[in-house]
Amino acid sequence: MNGQQIPAEKLNTILEAIKLAPSSLGLTPYKVIVIEDAETRKQLQPHFYNQSQIVDGSAVVIFATWTNITEKEVAAYMQDIAEQRSVPVESLTDFSNMINGSLKNQTPEQAQIWAAKQTYIALGFGLVAAAAEQIDATPMEGFNPAGVDEVLGLKELGLHSTVAITLGYRDEAGDYLVNAKKVRYNDEKLFIKK
Amino acid sequence: MNGQQIPAEKLNTILEAIKLAPSSLGLTPYKVIVIEDAETRKQLQPHFYNQSQIVDGSAVVIFATWTNITEKEVAAYMQDIAEQRSVPVESLTDFSNMINGSLKNQTPEQAQIWAAKQTYIALGFGLVAAAAEQIDATPMEGFNPAGVDEVLGLKELGLHSTVAITLGYRDEAGDYLVNAKKVRYNDEKLFIKK
Repeated sequence: MNGQQIPAEKLNTILEAIKLAPSSLGLTPYKVIVIEDAETRKQLQPHFYNQSQIVDGSAVVIFATWTNITEKEVAAYMQDIAEQRSVPVESLTDFSNMINGSLKNQTPEQAQIWAAKQTYIALGFGLVAAAAEQIDATPMEGFNPAGVDEVLGLKELGLHSTVAITLGYRDEAGDYLVNAKKVRYNDEKLFIKK
Repeated sequence: MNGQQIPAEKLNTILEAIKLAPSSLGLTPYKVIVIEDAETRKQLQPHFYNQSQIVDGSAVVIFATWTNITEKEVAAYMQDIAEQRSVPVESLTDFSNMINGSLKNQTPEQAQIWAAKQTYIALGFGLVAAAAEQIDATPMEGFNPAGVDEVLGLKELGLHSTVAITLGYRDEAGDYLVNAKKVRYNDEKLFIKK
């Protein structure tokens, strides 16, 4: 990327789209870390195999799932629904029991995988919004999560990183793929219609 | 949903968005099953805990990952890139070795989880496109994958279902949530900005 900063308004639109992403049971078991600070991005870069877009993009957005997904987190979610919809929290007991039951059927590791999958929906929303705003976006799985978590102090916050996007403007001159055709499977390879 | 069919043009736009979704390494380790046929949807319904939108929606879109992700599938992908970009397949050897190396570092189970995550990006793209086309969409994880795979003959195709969307038009009269406020965490709860 070329180091140019993206306008605050466009970044906010992208973050708003991420905020609107749905998640299973609406639980949204993640936080979204938005890093514009240059020094922090420099510290992150080695944990992204030194990829240049971490520092020459404008913002790095890291999706980090909750490490603990327990009745406590579900209760906080119920409280949030009750407040946003102005309904008594007791009216949500069935929903709460359903979520807790679903969590009890999973090992903590399975719950983590399930939570990580939800972050990929939000990633998708962020990528579409970036394209709509004509901001270049690089989705990234290739990083060392432990290193990223360490730099951002995520462990202490009960979070761990799963996937990321760098937002910025492409470096037309330095990108050997900039004129390459976008490769996607054609309809016959991707779809089965019934 | 109210049983009304969505126009073919709108469905195609949504599928086109799904097709444009990126995936890790571009491998797109999944197929997308698009079911408009009423009889097939009726057969699927019990495997979706009898949720009504399976039959009173207009189309069910099921994301199904490749069960085998091996050098063979990677070679087919290289062939596809070579054809689409009109480059010799040999020019892709480094990329191919990188993907195969990445796959060798994963157990088949880990590769499956990784592949499933990719389908959630495509799910996100489909949901945004549906909203843009003013089509109602219900993302669904709550189904019995083995039953769905059986109805659709996915096992024989080397596929298994991971997540789904029903597309259609909401039944305004019958949906008790239709006027409920959309609940999303506010900025302070969702974002950490640095």
